[in-house]
Amino acid sequence: VSIVADIPQRIPIAAPKRAAATPCVLNIGVIGPGKVGSALIAQLREAQPRLRREANLDLRLRAVADSRHMWLDCDDDALNGRAHGAQIWRPADLGEFAGYLRGDGMQPTLLADCSASDAVAGHYADWLGAGIHVVTPNKRAGSGPLSRWQAIHAAADAGGSRFQYEATVGAGLPVVQTLRDLLDTGDRLIEVEGMFSGTLAWLCNQFDGKRPFSELVREAHSLGYTEPDPRDDLSGTDVARKLVILAREAGSQLSLAEVEVESLVPQALAEVDRDEFMARLDEMDTPMEARRAGAMANRRVLRHVARLDRDGRASVNLQAVPETHAFAHTRLTDNIVQFTTRRYRDNPLIVQGPGAGPEVTAAGVFTDLLRVAGSMGARRCAC
Amino acid sequence: VSIVADIPQRIPIAAPKRAAATPCVLNIGVIGPGKVGSALIAQLREAQPRLRREANLDLRLRAVADSRHMWLDCDDDALNGRAHGAQIWRPADLGEFAGYLRGDGMQPTLLADCSASDAVAGHYADWLGAGIHVVTPNKRAGSGPLSRWQAIHAAADAGGSRFQYEATVGAGLPVVQTLRDLLDTGDRLIEVEGMFSGTLAWLCNQFDGKRPFSELVREAHSLGYTEPDPRDDLSGTDVARKLVILAREAGSQLSLAEVEVESLVPQALAEVDRDEFMARLDEMDTPMEARRAGAMANRRVLRHVARLDRDGRASVNLQAVPETHAFAHTRLTDNIVQFTTRRYRDNPLIVQGPGAGPEVTAAGVFTDLLRVAGSMGARRCAC
Repeated sequence: VSIVADIPQRIPIAAPKRAAATPCVLNIGVIGPGKVGSALIAQLREAQPRLRREANLDLRLRAVADSRHMWLDCDDDALNGRAHGAQIWRPADLGEFAGYLRGDGMQPTLLADCSASDAVAGHYADWLGAGIHVVTPNKRAGSGPLSRWQAIHAAADAGGSRFQYEATVGAGLPVVQTLRDLLDTGDRLIEVEGMFSGTLAWLCNQFDGKRPFSELVREAHSLGYTEPDPRDDLSGTDVARKLVILAREAGSQLSLAEVEVESLVPQALAEVDRDEFMARLDEMDTPMEARRAGAMANRRVLRHVARLDRDGRASVNLQAVPETHAFAHTRLTDNIVQFTTRRYRDNPLIVQGPGAGPEVTAAGVFTDLLRVAGSMGARRCAC
Repeated sequence: VSIVADIPQRIPIAAPKRAAATPCVLNIGVIGPGKVGSALIAQLREAQPRLRREANLDLRLRAVADSRHMWLDCDDDALNGRAHGAQIWRPADLGEFAGYLRGDGMQPTLLADCSASDAVAGHYADWLGAGIHVVTPNKRAGSGPLSRWQAIHAAADAGGSRFQYEATVGAGLPVVQTLRDLLDTGDRLIEVEGMFSGTLAWLCNQFDGKRPFSELVREAHSLGYTEPDPRDDLSGTDVARKLVILAREAGSQLSLAEVEVESLVPQALAEVDRDEFMARLDEMDTPMEARRAGAMANRRVLRHVARLDRDGRASVNLQAVPETHAFAHTRLTDNIVQFTTRRYRDNPLIVQGPGAGPEVTAAGVFTDLLRVAGSMGARRCAC
């Protein structure tokens, strides 16, 4: 189906140019081989021959760790599920894991943290300070304590290493890099507005008054669109984390606690256990239907919107937006972000598309990895 | 108005990390100091102190050339319009210009071609082969003869240099890089659809039946939204060039002549001189109004759409799109592009926003320049 099925893809990612016999090596470790980590490993494996051939880039997947195990000296066969050769299972010790990967420090090394673990994020500064690049879809570092976030960036500066996290917002959509490019070229951010939850986007799109909101939540839950406990989506915290990441990227010192988050979970259901929450879901219906009907009466639709305004205030809430608004025309589980800047003032710069799912999230991590590969010769350059 | 007015912007563009005393130097020459070139020079000058301080990157604007003059040994004062010091005006000789910039070849050198000249594009292969990076918003290389385009890329490979052209499509919007990242991470392109002319987008947006089409063209012309001869926009050729650039980026060997382009210029007006064309503009009104009314009767709106379909066919024409279509909701002079790929199949990845203007076009060129800076240590790396 591809229009380019028969044509070799050119790879101008600016890996160091060298004789074909001596490709540039990047040693890679993957932490968290869950859905995203497994998709990343599959994408890496598929891309390896092409990158070696066309970009002289030798991506070596050398180790994988989950919360209980480490798998060292991986090779492609191992990743195909066959265990032989030098693979060794050990109790996971992330310090040992990183030390093994880094070896004598003579070859560029990268860790892809595909976990959602705060504990793993606690290691970033050490790794970056030791010259190990880190790429991740894990939102914990970017939206966690400000002091840790600052220490991570200081460590990257000191270690000459890179910390990249495109996939933390909008999965594979070019959001963080786009903001970075705007700022690096001297633009000034005025406002960011977006929809950063595929789950809430889907619920808002489906909520047309024909079926009660609780029924839609149950359907989303059974389709796997929500977290195991749907309150993790409905509370808005995950969206607030993404907003904090973008705000910090723009130079703000925003913390998660400063974001005004409107939870869609009724107060009475906030603390009950999950089964009771699911059983009492229909308590959401009356207030949600009132908001929907009110919006419709004004020719508006409900959308779950995150916003960083021109005064630096950050908010996440359900809004009634006009039918002419860009957010009214998103589909399925689309994410959308619009950057209003000094240069994009009359009309914002908009990026839109599916913002969740293992494949596109892994692709966002892979893009970061290729950015690192494109620059990795630099730190050992003699200039 | 900026939310980040008082906070220093972090610049993680991965310039080589080095002691503060020895910043990494990039020697820059700008060709074509027109609207875009002047905006680029202004942006560079504004960014220089910040990049030197925060990214250890020393961007040196060393030469400017227009079609008749060269300005060598520029410094900031010279660019402020004061002529003193070592500046020398010479008849423009682009070979000499590039040779001067490259010097002994010991420092990374970059040429930003902000002309729209085919002759300048004819030099790219020589420059890239000599190790000089080229960044440009000039569409001539990307949409010109396929053999030249291939020679340019081969020269970049041989010279260890980079050729970047983000601003050829959608100005500062992340379009070419987004496509590149999709392909580099192993995605496959199925279809590209977009609106790549701000002029035609504006005309379509304004054309609601209240005023004849010719009146809108006259207004766009007087506002400076069109080329001096509006037929350069209405013919669709400029849009076809952008489609060729995207198709080739995806590995197709498409040539401009193979794009099916529907010109909005009536046959009878195609060859007359500009004054006569402007005088007879109302000959467009009857056919255009018929199309508009036909679209409206089907609850559709007219949009100027470029498309590369799944069979590799490229077309540029006026289409009646449903009011629910993403293209129906663009505003002002917005460009939009949607990539349908193996990973973005149900819902495409969409980038939208102002796609023309000196400031945003220059920012696109500047983004390319920073990508080169981020990788430039690599080619002199000892690994």
